[in-house]
Amino acid sequence: MAQPSISTLTSLLADDVTLVNEVIMARMASDVPMIPELASHLIAAGGKRMRPMLTLAGARAATGSTAAADSRALLLAAAVEFIHNATLLHDDVIDESDKRRGRDTANALWGNEASVLVGDFLFARSFELMVETDDIAVLGMLSSASARITEGEVKQMTMAGRPDSPMQDYLDVITGKTAILFAAAAASGAKVMGGSEALIQGLHRYGLSLGMAFQIVDDALDYRSDLASMGKNAGDDFNDGKITMPVILAWQDGDEAERAFWQRTIGMGAIQEGDFDEAVDYLTKHQAIERALAEAKSYAEQAIAALDVVPEEALREALADAALYTVARTL
Amino acid sequence: MAQPSISTLTSLLADDVTLVNEVIMARMASDVPMIPELASHLIAAGGKRMRPMLTLAGARAATGSTAAADSRALLLAAAVEFIHNATLLHDDVIDESDKRRGRDTANALWGNEASVLVGDFLFARSFELMVETDDIAVLGMLSSASARITEGEVKQMTMAGRPDSPMQDYLDVITGKTAILFAAAAASGAKVMGGSEALIQGLHRYGLSLGMAFQIVDDALDYRSDLASMGKNAGDDFNDGKITMPVILAWQDGDEAERAFWQRTIGMGAIQEGDFDEAVDYLTKHQAIERALAEAKSYAEQAIAALDVVPEEALREALADAALYTVARTL
Repeated sequence: MAQPSISTLTSLLADDVTLVNEVIMARMASDVPMIPELASHLIAAGGKRMRPMLTLAGARAATGSTAAADSRALLLAAAVEFIHNATLLHDDVIDESDKRRGRDTANALWGNEASVLVGDFLFARSFELMVETDDIAVLGMLSSASARITEGEVKQMTMAGRPDSPMQDYLDVITGKTAILFAAAAASGAKVMGGSEALIQGLHRYGLSLGMAFQIVDDALDYRSDLASMGKNAGDDFNDGKITMPVILAWQDGDEAERAFWQRTIGMGAIQEGDFDEAVDYLTKHQAIERALAEAKSYAEQAIAALDVVPEEALREALADAALYTVARTL
Repeated sequence: MAQPSISTLTSLLADDVTLVNEVIMARMASDVPMIPELASHLIAAGGKRMRPMLTLAGARAATGSTAAADSRALLLAAAVEFIHNATLLHDDVIDESDKRRGRDTANALWGNEASVLVGDFLFARSFELMVETDDIAVLGMLSSASARITEGEVKQMTMAGRPDSPMQDYLDVITGKTAILFAAAAASGAKVMGGSEALIQGLHRYGLSLGMAFQIVDDALDYRSDLASMGKNAGDDFNDGKITMPVILAWQDGDEAERAFWQRTIGMGAIQEGDFDEAVDYLTKHQAIERALAEAKSYAEQAIAALDVVPEEALREALADAALYTVARTL
């Protein structure tokens, strides 16, 4: 079998993604020059446009045709990408990050003030785009998703430094900060194009499970320094005291000495040279990374199982491939 | 004549404001306890609820009755207050403020991260409330207003430290950061209740002019240390290099020595003991504060002139009184 790839979906939706990129670039415009400068630094730098692709896929599942036939799906896909990038700008301020996708972050280049405000601008602009779809149900889905995102992020912040957190708290955090937007992106694409309730619900389940898989993998990667090519700095979460699935597993199975280690490092932030390697050793001892990746795989399978509502075989297979890719990219 | 007062409007709308406060408190709720804790610190602390009162006044102007008869106006008034408080939370992060309305700011107590995220939450929640009004035109007005607010704030940031800025830039900034939300608050209240286009436009003009007057006075007050009772710290804008109307006037009329002073202080931030008093001396020499207040008075008069579309006399007089109060509170 060929390696699962995101490129099946990317190829299928290529024309639509090109059109969405045009909407994105056009709608970053502002009379205040710093806004498009800063926003385009982040947005034009790329990312895989995963969330807008989910919206486009949802629209295609509902209509059987490309979204290009209808501007509402394109507006909505751009809106979803704006929400995502607004959260990235604010996350980088919060995490005091200076690198994202291998480039200097906006906050490093323009300062925190500009990043906060341009994040707010993108968020407001996303709602302007949604208003243009003239579909209030879609606004409902995405405004609720936006509130859930911030709830997830606040909860993540309050969990920081607490390796004894229950696994459910971690799952709640990633449901909010990641999975809800994947779900709303896919479901709202079908909704805006008049898809059936069964299709909307199925795509919501697909997006939710895909998002869980995606974030669990992303978090596990933070302890795989051999995968530095992914553009992440291994150890960022460890240094920030961020509590993720591998750490919770290692804490749960750890002895007293290990727990003391996690409390000193992730708990109190008293991190010394060599601590990250020691953390990786404990995770390895308890197979915590492998177990997290297995959990992600289970979510990816749930995502694929939800796809039976998608009528078009090529689209169904591309979405399934995307789910497999999410968990395969590390193995 | 009695001193103009905000209390005419406050009394007229008292029952509605009580109901809006209930909606506000109920809709700050979240499963993540830090969100209502932080939000209520700011929101419950008060403020005059000026923007929700404008929404309630707009609704009353359209229907002739109190908003209590219809939950849509109450939801919308709460949404407007949430947008305003989201911007306050983010402003305090940006300005690194530690006091607002005489109390510790949320960022001083909970940190910048929490303030950024809870601001985002309030913004998202405001759109959820608007969705419940089931009126997409109102969502359009307030999403555009929200984008304009951030444009105003970004422009303010890029103007900081430039006392030679054109007056029009300052007027653009305060239009965005303050007046647009006053305008949208009043107009959307009438819109959601089915008011005529003439009423909606008239209330928009009223809110816009009122907001300009309000912000010009607020900025001028920053150079009136005798008015510390207003809860502002005199000199904050000066220390932050913020460019406001009195400074632009004093720069325009200043000689070479004065301009060198403004460049060193507001321009470069090289502020020494005694500089604020010297700044006030220059403003006094050019009557810059009085001239700014006269400009504000002219906006207040424009606001009052726009009120002829409001049918109910008691409401019209209360709104006029609020405009007079805005400019009279300092004199």
